[in-house]
Amino acid sequence: MAGSTFGTVFRITTWGESHGKGVGVVIDGCPAGLPLKSLDIQEFLDRRKPGQSRYSTQRSEPDRVEILSGIFEGRTTGTPISLIVFNKDQHSKDYSEIASYYRPGHADYTFDAKYGFRDYRGGGRSSGRETIGRVAGGAVAARLLASLGISFCTYTRSIGPVEIRDFSREEIFNNKFYMPDRDAARKAAEYLENCMASRNSAGGVIECVIHGVPAGLGEPVFDKLDASLSKAVMSIGAMKGVEIGDGFSVASSTGLDDNDGFHIRPDGKVEKTSNHAGGILGGISDGSDIILRAAVKPTPSIASEQKTVNKSGEEITVSIKGRHDPVIVPRAVVVVEAMAAVTLADALLIGSTSRLEYLQKIWK
Amino acid sequence: MAGSTFGTVFRITTWGESHGKGVGVVIDGCPAGLPLKSLDIQEFLDRRKPGQSRYSTQRSEPDRVEILSGIFEGRTTGTPISLIVFNKDQHSKDYSEIASYYRPGHADYTFDAKYGFRDYRGGGRSSGRETIGRVAGGAVAARLLASLGISFCTYTRSIGPVEIRDFSREEIFNNKFYMPDRDAARKAAEYLENCMASRNSAGGVIECVIHGVPAGLGEPVFDKLDASLSKAVMSIGAMKGVEIGDGFSVASSTGLDDNDGFHIRPDGKVEKTSNHAGGILGGISDGSDIILRAAVKPTPSIASEQKTVNKSGEEITVSIKGRHDPVIVPRAVVVVEAMAAVTLADALLIGSTSRLEYLQKIWK
Amino acid sequence: MAGSTFGTVFRITTWGESHGKGVGVVIDGCPAGLPLKSLDIQEFLDRRKPGQSRYSTQRSEPDRVEILSGIFEGRTTGTPISLIVFNKDQHSKDYSEIASYYRPGHADYTFDAKYGFRDYRGGGRSSGRETIGRVAGGAVAARLLASLGISFCTYTRSIGPVEIRDFSREEIFNNKFYMPDRDAARKAAEYLENCMASRNSAGGVIECVIHGVPAGLGEPVFDKLDASLSKAVMSIGAMKGVEIGDGFSVASSTGLDDNDGFHIRPDGKVEKTSNHAGGILGGISDGSDIILRAAVKPTPSIASEQKTVNKSGEEITVSIKGRHDPVIVPRAVVVVEAMAAVTLADALLIGSTSRLEYLQKIWK
Amino acid sequence: MAGSTFGTVFRITTWGESHGKGVGVVIDGCPAGLPLKSLDIQEFLDRRKPGQSRYSTQRSEPDRVEILSGIFEGRTTGTPISLIVFNKDQHSKDYSEIASYYRPGHADYTFDAKYGFRDYRGGGRSSGRETIGRVAGGAVAARLLASLGISFCTYTRSIGPVEIRDFSREEIFNNKFYMPDRDAARKAAEYLENCMASRNSAGGVIECVIHGVPAGLGEPVFDKLDASLSKAVMSIGAMKGVEIGDGFSVASSTGLDDNDGFHIRPDGKVEKTSNHAGGILGGISDGSDIILRAAVKPTPSIASEQKTVNKSGEEITVSIKGRHDPVIVPRAVVVVEAMAAVTLADALLIGSTSRLEYLQKIWK
Repeated sequence: MAGSTFGTVFRITTWGESHGKGVGVVIDGCPAGLPLKSLDIQEFLDRRKPGQSRYSTQRSEPDRVEILSGIFEGRTTGTPISLIVFNKDQHSKDYSEIASYYRPGHADYTFDAKYGFRDYRGGGRSSGRETIGRVAGGAVAARLLASLGISFCTYTRSIGPVEIRDFSREEIFNNKFYMPDRDAARKAAEYLENCMASRNSAGGVIECVIHGVPAGLGEPVFDKLDASLSKAVMSIGAMKGVEIGDGFSVASSTGLDDNDGFHIRPDGKVEKTSNHAGGILGGISDGSDIILRAAVKPTPSIASEQKTVNKSGEEITVSIKGRHDPVIVPRAVVVVEAMAAVTLADALLIGSTSRLEYLQKIWK
Repeated sequence: MAGSTFGTVFRITTWGESHGKGVGVVIDGCPAGLPLKSLDIQEFLDRRKPGQSRYSTQRSEPDRVEILSGIFEGRTTGTPISLIVFNKDQHSKDYSEIASYYRPGHADYTFDAKYGFRDYRGGGRSSGRETIGRVAGGAVAARLLASLGISFCTYTRSIGPVEIRDFSREEIFNNKFYMPDRDAARKAAEYLENCMASRNSAGGVIECVIHGVPAGLGEPVFDKLDASLSKAVMSIGAMKGVEIGDGFSVASSTGLDDNDGFHIRPDGKVEKTSNHAGGILGGISDGSDIILRAAVKPTPSIASEQKTVNKSGEEITVSIKGRHDPVIVPRAVVVVEAMAAVTLADALLIGSTSRLEYLQKIWK
Repeated sequence: MAGSTFGTVFRITTWGESHGKGVGVVIDGCPAGLPLKSLDIQEFLDRRKPGQSRYSTQRSEPDRVEILSGIFEGRTTGTPISLIVFNKDQHSKDYSEIASYYRPGHADYTFDAKYGFRDYRGGGRSSGRETIGRVAGGAVAARLLASLGISFCTYTRSIGPVEIRDFSREEIFNNKFYMPDRDAARKAAEYLENCMASRNSAGGVIECVIHGVPAGLGEPVFDKLDASLSKAVMSIGAMKGVEIGDGFSVASSTGLDDNDGFHIRPDGKVEKTSNHAGGILGGISDGSDIILRAAVKPTPSIASEQKTVNKSGEEITVSIKGRHDPVIVPRAVVVVEAMAAVTLADALLIGSTSRLEYLQKIWK
Repeated sequence: MAGSTFGTVFRITTWGESHGKGVGVVIDGCPAGLPLKSLDIQEFLDRRKPGQSRYSTQRSEPDRVEILSGIFEGRTTGTPISLIVFNKDQHSKDYSEIASYYRPGHADYTFDAKYGFRDYRGGGRSSGRETIGRVAGGAVAARLLASLGISFCTYTRSIGPVEIRDFSREEIFNNKFYMPDRDAARKAAEYLENCMASRNSAGGVIECVIHGVPAGLGEPVFDKLDASLSKAVMSIGAMKGVEIGDGFSVASSTGLDDNDGFHIRPDGKVEKTSNHAGGILGGISDGSDIILRAAVKPTPSIASEQKTVNKSGEEITVSIKGRHDPVIVPRAVVVVEAMAAVTLADALLIGSTSRLEYLQKIWK
């Protein structure tokens, strides 16, 4: 069980290494009848594409997705949707040196410890290219959710010490960092210039807000919606923390401040009066926006000298060369959104059987 | 799929409501031949027992575990281990009023939204008593891990604004808060007295350190060890955030500061020179201590007045009566440890098939 | 993964040994709002009860089921339903001898080979009592299916060489063998008298017919409805073969004879003109009755002398004493029905998400 | 959950339609370090290739497999192995007519009932080409098992009324039917000539014998080895029955005849004295050969006239044109073997954690 499948009823299975023939995903359990075309998926992939700015790797892959199965006459058939992106721009020789030692902050050592050897070319399976399958799968999930009125707003909340102070939804796609605050984006650019100049790198925080989720999704005990979202997000490389709603700040809050009250909306519906909970109570969506944040570590590949060991058991000093983003955050924004979308699609399908009356609507 | 099963090869399935006949767990996939007796489990359960101090609910249940299956002549047989704790001290009338309205910060509203109705007595399935099954299952997992040299140290890192400044392993079991710092425990007690006096409640942070984990556990993509640990911990009621190693602070760190170098130990083994990663690289254990932290929200049941709505669609003001801990953190410490243990046991069993040479050791 | 869970969305987890404290089942994923009481389950259990005739073991256990969780005010809540039957009539000393040797036709040897040792008392986990959890779980599934118009007719088709030649639904519950043919039942009784006189035992065939299954259940490739039903039935102890519709006889049939045509019913619906397929085409229900048959081996515990070996590595001759049914078939009838019901309930829940329009009926 | 994944620890996920871009499989959980090359897989695929005789479809596809991931320097890396076979010889216009009606014996009607519409080109997902993914996955499983001493012998036991009477292992690959009896193969050819002349088709029985399986594989209750094998085999299109060992004939046997005794081999090992059980006792392998048989229905596509209905609700008479095998059995032989191999590989990996001492061999 090499852990390459995520989800239970709506599930994605990804495959592929950085320098193999390609990377891909099989999406199983997508309901039949959903309109879907390559462009829906390509738009998602383009958001994680390298080479869009001087702050992301200059590897220039078009990363064109091909649909291999599961779509007929423009709609999903209910059978597995297989998507592939061929690798085009592999420079295997770039990576030949790293076969011999363990890069700090990377999975080189742990892959060797687990499997006895590894595909060392470009990080192999632990490369950032692994996320292409996630994003392609997430694009399909997002499309399904959109057809039921659920939408996403995901952006960079901070890069290094630079945090957003303003929020403009339009601004998100106006700057290279997907920040909803133009001023913060400008400061982030300055900060990254300094990082690059000092052969260093930066981390940051990604925030994802999900609108239109009906109350009642998520399962009470182990498959709580927040638990599943946490796993989804923490399974992305470089993530070191995740939080829902007020997150870690609840630890120093009080019950009186943290509890969200309820009131009756003019249309008669029950609604919370605030949203400290981030849209999830007892593991089940409460009808408010779902809010989650993830902490991304600084890019581990840096040109500065670092101490490590090689496979001959010698202690050495290395400096990582090659094309590396000084910050991963902007390209990871869409990956977080994709994983949240897959999680929510799965929860929605599972939730469709939570009441006998739901079954009777379909089968009687 | 009501989400009551956790784990793939080592898996637990829990059941039970606060005011039903009891709560329990079925542990499936525990290898045969592990010495196990009731006391091993009871010791874990006693750590989450109510009524141990004036800071936890005075409900006085002995919570004695009974082993119903899966043990023969003092050892596990490889077949499911069914454990039950009968409910003894239910005061159903205490809870009759809450049937009519939605308590702020609780799952009352979301259970109704999901299922159409709910067992309102004492929180039903979303009661804290649900964690008994987790802790009993975790005790078995911990026992299995101990037989392979893996141990846990879990404690309260903060309560409200009071954070530990010192670390004494012995002190953890010397105070009611499971804090490794006597002075912090004293200050936490003062803080909670104030909370109770103002009919309010507090949250906090729990930290779990796991020693002796061999390098190589965890699966590369979706079932990364940190992802699975995150789900495990976030599935516990009241958890709002989780982090591994340096966690959220990596967001403002740099690659140079965050990367852990490698060196060769005197015995020839590879080891990291620091542990910002918290023992996991690329989703796979690296041989260092695994470190995780979880943020616990303040107890939602408070005696102060709060605004909410009732099931007749009226806006009302309520004040929650009854026996409620002003802080959940101390009793949740063992729950975090239990969920981490189940996750690690599962990862270890799955990891036992990651190399052909492992299979050959067993089958040839 | 000791294999004690069956089903994906509607799932049962069983536990318990013949001579432990009891046996039980946790049913997870049953939709909320289904009326359910102990009697619904007890009626199923009573159909597998021992001691009902001289052709079944005289062990006189009342086998009363207790509902421990998941039901509130007479309806399922959507949370796990835990059911237990305590063991009452264990004669552990009866079984002390068999600890030392391997009974032919039993799992004694294979349990030792797998686990290194076994709970030898009464067969432990491989005892027929293990089926109590299946039947209790199946009773809940059958109840759910009944509320959607799906019903079962399960009976003994043959015992030893005696096969039914007539079919009367009323007769099924009129004789001890659950045969729909009074004359065959009489002949079966004679045949079994001979078996017992010669210290021997008999096998037989069970047939299960399921009415009212809507077309469209089952998943196309690996989770075909017939595949899942086959696993469900073959997982019952003593089953050696399973077939759907015309089953093994198709091997010598022709396409012209085996294909079922289609016509239009007076009410305008499409219907098959025959049912060689047994209600399943391409792994998906076709709206006709689902028909399956299972072959049950003769009771392995016989009083005749047999050659075997003991744990000291000696070849010995044994004669199995104690209370044993000369034929398992009649008591297994309800077990087959129970497993078919669980399988169908799971397929129905999974099938509820196969079309986008189904989701839109629920969520829009 | 469109049911396209099989297995738990060693798992395959297949995708693809008859007339899409290709078909493929993702194999997840294969241990690292297994030598594997394209040819290992191609040899399996060649056994199911069409166009090898006048008794199989003349569609002339080379069906060359490409390895897209998971292999590095000639060995498996432990990460997912993605395999693809591109479709080359699709004649979409051949199939345009069948879009309008439901072919008897096919899944056209049930796909429409389930999904609301279907990819009607060449059977879409329910085409025989779907088995390419199974066979490619099974080739990897068989390779893994071979490295642990487990091998397969699978062949045609009967075609229509012609059953084998002799057994020569060498003969299996000497005739187009994979029959171990030259004389039976000759008679089968005659029988099929008659079938074709009368625009009809034939079924048959496939037998699979597995050598070298260690005692102790399979899980006691729901995941019995025979249950999992049954599901695996029954999930192949056109299978209507499956049996283990003496199978359906046990129903009329007696305990004395059906029980297998035990003796001590010269080398001191315990062994059964006969093998009525077909190598599995209580759901766990017993060290003897595993023997299973599957009943294959006659090819449903026949040129004779049949009654059916079209999508306009009219009753019509059809005659299926195009390239169709008069018998599926010979090409399904390798599919049965493949599915058995995947099942066994999964059971072996799961069984590697059944004893604490196995874990200690690896981790201590």
